[in-house]
Amino acid sequence: MNTKQIIDLDMKSIWHPCTQMKDHEKLPIVPIKSGKGVYLYDFENRAYIDCVSSWWVNLFGHSNDYINSKLKEQIDTLEHVILAGFTHEGIVKLSDRLINLTPKGLDKCFYADNGSSAVEVALKMSYHVHLLDGKKRFKFLSLSNSYHGETIGALSVGAVELYKKTYSPILIECVVAPVPQNDGDVEFALKELEKILDKEGENISAFILEPLIQCAGNMHIYSNFYVKKAVQMCQERGIYVIFDEIAVGFGRTGTLFAYEQCEVVPDFLCLSKGITAGYMPLSVVMMSDDIYQKFYAPYEHQKAFLHSHSYTGNALACACANATLDIFENENVIDKNKELSKFIIATMNNLSEIDFVANMRYKGMVFAFDLVGFAPNRRVGLEVFEAGLRVGILLRPLGNTIYFMPPYVITHDQIKYVFDSLKTILKQIKY
Amino acid sequence: MNTKQIIDLDMKSIWHPCTQMKDHEKLPIVPIKSGKGVYLYDFENRAYIDCVSSWWVNLFGHSNDYINSKLKEQIDTLEHVILAGFTHEGIVKLSDRLINLTPKGLDKCFYADNGSSAVEVALKMSYHVHLLDGKKRFKFLSLSNSYHGETIGALSVGAVELYKKTYSPILIECVVAPVPQNDGDVEFALKELEKILDKEGENISAFILEPLIQCAGNMHIYSNFYVKKAVQMCQERGIYVIFDEIAVGFGRTGTLFAYEQCEVVPDFLCLSKGITAGYMPLSVVMMSDDIYQKFYAPYEHQKAFLHSHSYTGNALACACANATLDIFENENVIDKNKELSKFIIATMNNLSEIDFVANMRYKGMVFAFDLVGFAPNRRVGLEVFEAGLRVGILLRPLGNTIYFMPPYVITHDQIKYVFDSLKTILKQIKY
Repeated sequence: MNTKQIIDLDMKSIWHPCTQMKDHEKLPIVPIKSGKGVYLYDFENRAYIDCVSSWWVNLFGHSNDYINSKLKEQIDTLEHVILAGFTHEGIVKLSDRLINLTPKGLDKCFYADNGSSAVEVALKMSYHVHLLDGKKRFKFLSLSNSYHGETIGALSVGAVELYKKTYSPILIECVVAPVPQNDGDVEFALKELEKILDKEGENISAFILEPLIQCAGNMHIYSNFYVKKAVQMCQERGIYVIFDEIAVGFGRTGTLFAYEQCEVVPDFLCLSKGITAGYMPLSVVMMSDDIYQKFYAPYEHQKAFLHSHSYTGNALACACANATLDIFENENVIDKNKELSKFIIATMNNLSEIDFVANMRYKGMVFAFDLVGFAPNRRVGLEVFEAGLRVGILLRPLGNTIYFMPPYVITHDQIKYVFDSLKTILKQIKY
Repeated sequence: MNTKQIIDLDMKSIWHPCTQMKDHEKLPIVPIKSGKGVYLYDFENRAYIDCVSSWWVNLFGHSNDYINSKLKEQIDTLEHVILAGFTHEGIVKLSDRLINLTPKGLDKCFYADNGSSAVEVALKMSYHVHLLDGKKRFKFLSLSNSYHGETIGALSVGAVELYKKTYSPILIECVVAPVPQNDGDVEFALKELEKILDKEGENISAFILEPLIQCAGNMHIYSNFYVKKAVQMCQERGIYVIFDEIAVGFGRTGTLFAYEQCEVVPDFLCLSKGITAGYMPLSVVMMSDDIYQKFYAPYEHQKAFLHSHSYTGNALACACANATLDIFENENVIDKNKELSKFIIATMNNLSEIDFVANMRYKGMVFAFDLVGFAPNRRVGLEVFEAGLRVGILLRPLGNTIYFMPPYVITHDQIKYVFDSLKTILKQIKY
């Protein structure tokens, strides 16, 4: 098929995720033919640098030779087997590695397919443990500006109005504490949290948060001290803490996992996205052996956690995940990223001279700034997206927040190209 | 690793889906090393015939040569690209094929990763369309004995107490109509439905059902006439109908899709499991262009359907799905299955002489019977499972319902082996 044929057939047949399809009357969908490294190529052989890691999933470039080879080996061996009553080497290795990479308290792995499903597992399980302890705690606590996915349970504990408002009558009850806006209001945020816990603490099953960065919440970076204190306050009161590290895990915040910077261990850790380095859906929830033991009982006590997805623990996805961890181990990724992060910060700083660029912020391998001062309805982020495509950079702003969250294999030259292009684009934008 | 090492590490690190882990003190988990055709092989090279298609997903055998080759081609080209703003050839082809395989009224494809997520998309979308039409319909209607997945929304519309009871306080409101138990009570079931619709019809967004077979509901096969009439009654009252064909689609009921036997077209069709022939998670919801158009509006009207999963429309999964449809097209699968189904029915009939084998039933490529008359707490299904493993057949009964739902590539000899073995096993079971 050629570009026009694909676009026509796409528009006729596909309803794209998180998209007002009418936007594509003006902005054609881009058909991608292939990928290699940080580049995606269209059917006219134009290259685009994937500055958003294809929705924050890709870590080591598209069509990575090493992951490809490991995945092909797995295909020739075992593509999938039911995980109830059966197991396979890939998932056993992966689980053992994840447990060894995380502290005591994250002792068991329960698998699902995507981030939303992992959040649902953690919510249900936290609620269920309390029930097994004889406590009826029907509410969940989350932070303002948070996003945890879009299935009904996951959506219920998010607080970004854009996604949630429409569905509020069919969502489960959730209490929202304010996320600190800046380091100056950490104390205020903790006090507000305390008020909520004093009032509602005994009704709350779990507190769910994305530690350090609220990614879909316009890449809001917030205090690790807040996370530490908030977690302690909840855990002291018997409220389980769920860390949604679906987007921030696997090196995005500068450490392998974000909780490392917060000096606490959550009761549940949800991982997905980067776990397969961007190859295919897989998610896992890790929890303590104590929690596991509460469900461990004679069958007739009916205490089992009856949650499953057909493809739970898929062997192909586990092969990708093991290859991903191999690369982290063999290539010293976290240390190398420190250097890369510094280079990106220095390069991005060149944009600060543009007067409508504000709130420049970064953490690990996440970099963002806002375009401010425009008319309220102007979609200036979209203008930047369109202009980026014309010069071969795939940015996908969150509203008027531009962020850079590239695969870790990006080179200095590619980084320079992105920010030089971005500077040119931004300089051509008028109020 | 050897068998013991894998089992030890598995028990130490993995919490298996839908499993009381304590069961594995007596019943060791089976580590699978490889698969080929209907066989799964353990680390001692024992072969097991996969009689449950690894949770109803596998269609054309494990490590299928054709699908393997197509998947490897895709790996070398493009493993994944973000589906918002971008597209790729595999998903465009797949969507076009699905639309051509289904009638008018199923005109667009919205993708997700697993069955539960597809159900969540359909529930949210059906609720949302009514809202766009100015109608607030906060309830959903489903059938007794139904199962639609285990995320909060999907769980809410299920009615199997085993999965649901624990979580009822955090589930959304659902109305349950009785599923017909047999052809004799279809009229009763339709009258009960009518009463519910008279009372609650205007509050109901959508009616969700698995047409023809309630799979997790102990393979309950029910009347196509009921489905037809029930769908018509709902659609006449402006209630959307969601067909969950996650398990029953792709030939399981004897036609490519179950709705074909019911002479109706649902408003939403959810597909997953067999869509990739058992390779990896992928799901899709199909709906009418009319529904699509209700969300199609200028961006600032905020009518977009903001649902997404990171790996939506994953290119690797689409390659498997296209290869699956190739096989359906090129190998005349549906017709061949008719012969195969007859052979299986004839072979299974040999079990009817066993006095505790009851309710023998079948539809297309699904075959089931119940073990009746045992003491209430006796897990006789589990005894059959264990005995099956010893002779190389992987059955995984639903309670005391034994079912046979094999990959479509199973041979007459393999079928004979399964039912001969099963007969021997059953004959050794005492009350």
